[in-house]
Amino acid sequence: MSVQDEQGNSRRLAKDIGSLYYSDLLPLAGDSEPETREFLNRMTEILMDFLHKTFDRSSKILDFHHPEQLLEIIDLSLPNQPKNIDQLLADCRDTLTYQVKTGHPRFFNQLSNGVDVISMAGEWLTATANTNMFTYEISPVFILMEHMTLKKMREIIGYKGGDSILAPGGTVSNLYAVLAARYRKYPRVKSEGLQSLPGPLVMFTSEHSHFSMMSAAAASGLGTDNCISVPCNEKGQMIPAELERLVLKSISDGKIPFMVTATAGTTVFGAFDPINPIADICDKHHLWLHIDAAWGGGLLMSEKFRYKFEGIQRADSVTWNPHKMMNVLLQCSTVHFKQNSLLYHCNRMCADYLFQQDKHYDVTYDTGDKVIQCGRHNDIFKFWLLWRAKGTEGFAKQMERFVQLTQYLVEGLLKRPERFQLIVAEPECTNVCFWYVPTRFRTMAPGPERDRLLGQITPILKGRMMSTGTLMVGYQPQGKLPNFFRCIISNQAVTEEDVDFLVDEMDRLGHDL
Amino acid sequence: MSVQDEQGNSRRLAKDIGSLYYSDLLPLAGDSEPETREFLNRMTEILMDFLHKTFDRSSKILDFHHPEQLLEIIDLSLPNQPKNIDQLLADCRDTLTYQVKTGHPRFFNQLSNGVDVISMAGEWLTATANTNMFTYEISPVFILMEHMTLKKMREIIGYKGGDSILAPGGTVSNLYAVLAARYRKYPRVKSEGLQSLPGPLVMFTSEHSHFSMMSAAAASGLGTDNCISVPCNEKGQMIPAELERLVLKSISDGKIPFMVTATAGTTVFGAFDPINPIADICDKHHLWLHIDAAWGGGLLMSEKFRYKFEGIQRADSVTWNPHKMMNVLLQCSTVHFKQNSLLYHCNRMCADYLFQQDKHYDVTYDTGDKVIQCGRHNDIFKFWLLWRAKGTEGFAKQMERFVQLTQYLVEGLLKRPERFQLIVAEPECTNVCFWYVPTRFRTMAPGPERDRLLGQITPILKGRMMSTGTLMVGYQPQGKLPNFFRCIISNQAVTEEDVDFLVDEMDRLGHDL
Repeated sequence: MSVQDEQGNSRRLAKDIGSLYYSDLLPLAGDSEPETREFLNRMTEILMDFLHKTFDRSSKILDFHHPEQLLEIIDLSLPNQPKNIDQLLADCRDTLTYQVKTGHPRFFNQLSNGVDVISMAGEWLTATANTNMFTYEISPVFILMEHMTLKKMREIIGYKGGDSILAPGGTVSNLYAVLAARYRKYPRVKSEGLQSLPGPLVMFTSEHSHFSMMSAAAASGLGTDNCISVPCNEKGQMIPAELERLVLKSISDGKIPFMVTATAGTTVFGAFDPINPIADICDKHHLWLHIDAAWGGGLLMSEKFRYKFEGIQRADSVTWNPHKMMNVLLQCSTVHFKQNSLLYHCNRMCADYLFQQDKHYDVTYDTGDKVIQCGRHNDIFKFWLLWRAKGTEGFAKQMERFVQLTQYLVEGLLKRPERFQLIVAEPECTNVCFWYVPTRFRTMAPGPERDRLLGQITPILKGRMMSTGTLMVGYQPQGKLPNFFRCIISNQAVTEEDVDFLVDEMDRLGHDL
Repeated sequence: MSVQDEQGNSRRLAKDIGSLYYSDLLPLAGDSEPETREFLNRMTEILMDFLHKTFDRSSKILDFHHPEQLLEIIDLSLPNQPKNIDQLLADCRDTLTYQVKTGHPRFFNQLSNGVDVISMAGEWLTATANTNMFTYEISPVFILMEHMTLKKMREIIGYKGGDSILAPGGTVSNLYAVLAARYRKYPRVKSEGLQSLPGPLVMFTSEHSHFSMMSAAAASGLGTDNCISVPCNEKGQMIPAELERLVLKSISDGKIPFMVTATAGTTVFGAFDPINPIADICDKHHLWLHIDAAWGGGLLMSEKFRYKFEGIQRADSVTWNPHKMMNVLLQCSTVHFKQNSLLYHCNRMCADYLFQQDKHYDVTYDTGDKVIQCGRHNDIFKFWLLWRAKGTEGFAKQMERFVQLTQYLVEGLLKRPERFQLIVAEPECTNVCFWYVPTRFRTMAPGPERDRLLGQITPILKGRMMSTGTLMVGYQPQGKLPNFFRCIISNQAVTEEDVDFLVDEMDRLGHDL
């Protein structure tokens, strides 16, 4: 069967591809382009249907099943014999049926919420181009896009020059900062190791900071005992005087302080550490200052929120994840360095088979020898395309909208003080932390004992949300505070109506607990 | 404008979306589903056209431009104001026009060649589902797929039980192995650091192994001097007697050996280290045995090549990258451990906000607390779907076909001994290493002086390939051997005709050098 397409070319049509197999498609079967197109068209239809349900408020966010139930419902086995196209497409449909719709306007569960269709289309292109990011040789356009985009981000931070890299997540970005800080202090650590140093290196980070700093201390061989937690005030911000006290104590204990991490947007409270006072302490004691703005970084896109980052240009390095508040698809994390070429000197291994210096082009664009990965996934295209689509102004508006909706939520909770108990009265980011108070606790005096009981019902209410499938909000304890909810607004699909729904639905699901 | 679709539903059509903007699409504009569908359809057409050219031998692999030229041709700027849909689609077309077609049947340049359309469709779904892999809570189906697939891989390796994780590339997989080996030897390293140990830890790997072992030694704080290179025979295989000599020497030097890496498929020669004799040495000296099968691992899928891995089940850990010979899209790397729960104990940081132990489901499926990343990209779906599509037998056939084509290439080069000088006469993997000999060198006696001169023309010939755009083959030096070509067959689009083309085209482009 063949038809004329719009350009008048004859095209063979493959209507019934369901009974075909892998070996009937490209590239194995050389003349199978119509069948391959038809397969991809059917796949695209499945994906569009999933998007339709994602943005449809009458659809559930998830259809929850426990692991052993799910294993009974869907066939996840890896067969010896191939499955045909019909079965593969059914596999895709089943997978999406039981997947959580993280782009649903009532999914407030993670720092990365939402699915952006431009960025998503960008990721489809990335998949089709299927290349690695280590050399200009095989990724010329994408390497230049990284170059342009990272340079622009450094300008926004306030760096002149410098260097940056994309990493597989904020935790690895933070590890890069630890490695660079360590190398600047003692370059010989690269060849001779930590045991060649005159004493144990210690780093400092706030008690509210992300666990990735501890993880980096473990992986890099410093040991978690040498990642020292600095106390915070009740807003979750690091107390500079406490930092200085602990730096001095570690020196008197015979340790060697080398690095401080200030967080711009903590994971739970969304707090911003005061950068300038921390930078002053770093200057005084010659410490590397790293800013973990993995979460809060997006707010840099609006001049209105610039004040939260006052002093950021003084930092030696900054982590900033566009896959969080900027809604770039997962994953897209960046880390920026004030000093040029440090990343390169710290991490280069001079692999001859990739980073030949005698290539016929300017090899300074090859990025692979400054990373601790070898190959890197192409995380830039989806971000670059989204920036083209929105413009810098579009990102600024988005940040302002998220903050506006956060304020709307806070007001909604304050209007119902008997039902909701706010933990941070004036959120600095889009995190809203609170306990839900079921009916039987409303007459009980607020205080540690009531908090403890509310902490016990929190996971039960979360379980009800997931079983019902209408709402998802995360929870956790923090320090001495028992379990409480942390609602995140970072999805452009969210409206005031969804925020109203959140408030009402928690009450509907939890009032009798 | 509206039409009836196949189900009889009325659908508004959006024919002219070119002048629309980001804010006119989902999720910002709530009623814009037809426009969004039309945008994605147009994007899909662009991607299909790229695939068409990728598999069309009359298309060039690349249209090479130097960085400064490319920056003049395409507009990569990040604007303040949004670009419209027409411009975004033009951006996508331009990007692909200047991208290297890594799936082209004449691209023999990397260990990861080819673009598999099933795996690609899987990655489109992954993008649309846009979730993170740290918890069952937000990735139930994908977490179970990881569980099933990694278990199957461990069975193929020959492990009973054990544990595994997907990592962002083989280098990070190898880093996981170093961290686990170090932790098993001295669990206190996690909290107290390397400086608490009685002496410097040392690891061993062959001089032909991938640079990632050196990189892991640097990042983990051991120092590259403590990653000791073991000499190889002329085939590129580690010499076990040399390993034992160096282990004993390091002990007498007051160092603490803890780990040996054997490579199954080296990067350049494709050599397989002899596992059993190396495992005997590891047993004797109580050393962790890691197998880096990032490249060669795919051959485990065929019983015919199992003999190359004899003894692999004795290893404590194995790296295996399905994104290489198995043609899963970039990226997909796995690392497997014989011992269960070690990964968890080594890396867990107990982050309360993600890995609550009081959730309403079985939290042993949450994987995020055993990794050194926090969030992980979903790298499993494209692999799982491909396995369903091909079956285990399909992978076995693919491996046998690659080895057959490699043999065909070797025979083709041997037939032209005046033009091609093989470096490894009998490749163990699909790497074929050789010098091309231009006319004026053909009468010169083979030997180090001729090799040196051939090494000089190698990058020039590579430059000609890229400028012409008809062929891409990698090159590098190795130890004392000057630059030579390394051809990789790992693309299912390659046929005997493409191998013939490679031989003829190198001669056409290089004979007058």
